[in-house]
Amino acid sequence: MNQPQTPRILIVGGGFGGLNAARALRRANAEITLLDRQNHHLFQPLLYQVATAALSPGDIAAPLRKVLERQRNCTVHLAEVASIDLHARRAITTTGATYDYDYLVLAAGSQTAYFGHDDWPARAPGLKTIDDALDIRRRYLLAFERAETESDPQARRRALTFAIVGAGPTGVEMAGAMAELARQTMRRSFRRLDTRDARIILIDGNHRVLETFPPDLSARAARDLERLGVELRLGRHVTAVEADAITIGAGPDAARIETTNIIWAAGVQGVPLAATLGVPLDRAGRVIVNPDLSIPNHAEAFVIGDLALAKDASTGKQTPGVAQAAMQAGRHAGRIIANEIASSPPPPRGGGQADAQRQPGGGASPHPVSPSQPPLRASVPSSLRPFFHYKDKGELATIGRARAVANLNRLHLGGYPAWLLWALVHITYLIGYRSKLLTLLNWAWLYLFYDRGVRLITGRDTNP
Amino acid sequence: MNQPQTPRILIVGGGFGGLNAARALRRANAEITLLDRQNHHLFQPLLYQVATAALSPGDIAAPLRKVLERQRNCTVHLAEVASIDLHARRAITTTGATYDYDYLVLAAGSQTAYFGHDDWPARAPGLKTIDDALDIRRRYLLAFERAETESDPQARRRALTFAIVGAGPTGVEMAGAMAELARQTMRRSFRRLDTRDARIILIDGNHRVLETFPPDLSARAARDLERLGVELRLGRHVTAVEADAITIGAGPDAARIETTNIIWAAGVQGVPLAATLGVPLDRAGRVIVNPDLSIPNHAEAFVIGDLALAKDASTGKQTPGVAQAAMQAGRHAGRIIANEIASSPPPPRGGGQADAQRQPGGGASPHPVSPSQPPLRASVPSSLRPFFHYKDKGELATIGRARAVANLNRLHLGGYPAWLLWALVHITYLIGYRSKLLTLLNWAWLYLFYDRGVRLITGRDTNP
Repeated sequence: MNQPQTPRILIVGGGFGGLNAARALRRANAEITLLDRQNHHLFQPLLYQVATAALSPGDIAAPLRKVLERQRNCTVHLAEVASIDLHARRAITTTGATYDYDYLVLAAGSQTAYFGHDDWPARAPGLKTIDDALDIRRRYLLAFERAETESDPQARRRALTFAIVGAGPTGVEMAGAMAELARQTMRRSFRRLDTRDARIILIDGNHRVLETFPPDLSARAARDLERLGVELRLGRHVTAVEADAITIGAGPDAARIETTNIIWAAGVQGVPLAATLGVPLDRAGRVIVNPDLSIPNHAEAFVIGDLALAKDASTGKQTPGVAQAAMQAGRHAGRIIANEIASSPPPPRGGGQADAQRQPGGGASPHPVSPSQPPLRASVPSSLRPFFHYKDKGELATIGRARAVANLNRLHLGGYPAWLLWALVHITYLIGYRSKLLTLLNWAWLYLFYDRGVRLITGRDTNP
Repeated sequence: MNQPQTPRILIVGGGFGGLNAARALRRANAEITLLDRQNHHLFQPLLYQVATAALSPGDIAAPLRKVLERQRNCTVHLAEVASIDLHARRAITTTGATYDYDYLVLAAGSQTAYFGHDDWPARAPGLKTIDDALDIRRRYLLAFERAETESDPQARRRALTFAIVGAGPTGVEMAGAMAELARQTMRRSFRRLDTRDARIILIDGNHRVLETFPPDLSARAARDLERLGVELRLGRHVTAVEADAITIGAGPDAARIETTNIIWAAGVQGVPLAATLGVPLDRAGRVIVNPDLSIPNHAEAFVIGDLALAKDASTGKQTPGVAQAAMQAGRHAGRIIANEIASSPPPPRGGGQADAQRQPGGGASPHPVSPSQPPLRASVPSSLRPFFHYKDKGELATIGRARAVANLNRLHLGGYPAWLLWALVHITYLIGYRSKLLTLLNWAWLYLFYDRGVRLITGRDTNP
């Protein structure tokens, strides 16, 4: 089997970052273990299309086992890491299993941030997982079902008001898609209800939508949204979230909007796992990493993607929490590890522990948990490694049918060209030919017939 | 708007029966309301393919509003009927809303039957809804994930043993698909585990699989199943279902199989709604109907599909609980009603109650619930109507890739020809071109690459 000295690489998270790190290590003579709490890689940029009934979950999710099936040096385990002991070089899962490593790539991502309002998540769900998307889809479609049979005009208005908090790409794309769904796709499906009465309200504390984009594209996106009937409420923050209303602004300026449908796209923070590292985090719970993406004083441990606060070594600019950045960081970390493994054959290890890399928790394990081993590999010092430089290829956001904005740094595009580019880029980066094909087909269908095929209410209605 | 005397037709259930009844009434001068507790029509014959990761729910489900969008005399409401008052001609929903009718088509279907074992449903889930299918898919895929990291050989064997109870078409198709998924699709996805170690056990109290088929086709199906590695345990009934085992047979003959994965495909019974009618039911909870499919002494109320015990007027043969029979019965009932409405203009009604057909429950309603009205229409007596004759076009069941059996009454087919016929028939009856196209595409993918694209674990794990 494996030589005892084969280096063990642990990748936590199978998103854009983790997957690209694994692929960069495909030729490495190493034992790679990739852990994820889901069994699939999720193409998050299109998750809002699952929430708005355009795509099925299976179109944008790929089983991690399938994706990495041919990479024989990589094992996938379905497991949620609860904590990481940087000194012992060990990850412990929620079920108590332990994974020792020589190199760690931590790519566990982010979660929806509510800025300390613990009662808001239940009232204003976010969009991070397939279950989140199906939950939003169910709430959205149920709102129309209820409005159709509701005779109290006020309750009906409340049911048909949708407040989306956060006018970044996710919020903008969700608002546009929800407006199209109401005004076009579902219009002829109801008898009593005029679905065009639905109000889609996009809220942001900033004074413009898509604030990371140049102002001209923000203006273009705002105009496109308003043409679709989306109401913009900008420049004021959300101050209260109730079960049937949301308040923006404070004092005499405050506006309370009655709605039973609030969606939170206002921000993310690092997953709580980061706090178990015992290293400095920024306010958003991200790990402040070295220029090579390793953790200070732990050259063997990298943090990449949404969970890292990385600054470009030359410009000092913060790397954004987008798919492109995570992919580039994953490749960067993977290549560093691959090079170090290739250039320095590891010293022989304590003896025959290779098979015990994974230690299932509890006393039932035939392999008792091995005592903490001394650090096995002297990594190259962080400062001698290549630094990470984020290559910003631009930003894209779609507002709806044939409406999008593209910031290609020097070139700013809107309308149809931007929309075509958006579609092309997303199809290109979707993993697997099956996903590409099905997504293209569904988009063609939507484009030709204004028909969103996945208008299904499934799952339990946990918040009736 | 509608004339007060426009007859009100209430259809309960949007399955094959209800949908075909609605369509047969498309030219009727009537106010049709179709109620379903789901917002979609579900193509149940392919539901096992959602449970076995070949298709997405959106491929085989069509929103009822979309399906009936153009039928302007038909309104769809998402509602679950709790009881029906045949004398008042009124349905009451679980939320207290009431629907008065002149004609009723009750097509509420069946549910999984456990023959009085109230603790079995949680341990051995059935397959009736999309949520059921996603639940089975999650349990199936999780079993392999757990086995991959399980070091106790006995627990591992238990996790990889799948017991399917009931060797009718659903059980046979599920067993075949699960065997293919384990032995072919997932084989290269695991590192420690040999997925071919998975045991798929098909259990039935009958001495042959597919007992409604001719014996030669049962034998053929059994041979095909065994070639796929399915173990058949026939001729003994299930006597105990525990959390981690199932027992078949009794006394010294009893066999206890350790498994944490039990799927119930052993039988159905009419939904509990039938019991609220106050008319005779058979042992399976089905309404015993007249030869025209109406309820005895209630010529205005029809029961069709799985909820009816209908006998062919000439042969006395019981109509089977299959899609074909429900579709034919739906058309039969719909045509009778359409003819009676067309031939006898209804007498004027008490006055201005048309808008009050639907009465949302609770005191908030602006329309108070109208007092029970006298029967409004004298229906044609049941005995003077055309009788229902089920035209049996044959039976099909697929075992796996290029394996199926087809009983076309005189012609018995197996293997590739039967499989092609099976695929053709199912694509033909799938509702909507989008569903047909996506399903065909997914099948082509599965056929060419042995790849089941929807291997996603989603939803909450309610039974860990």
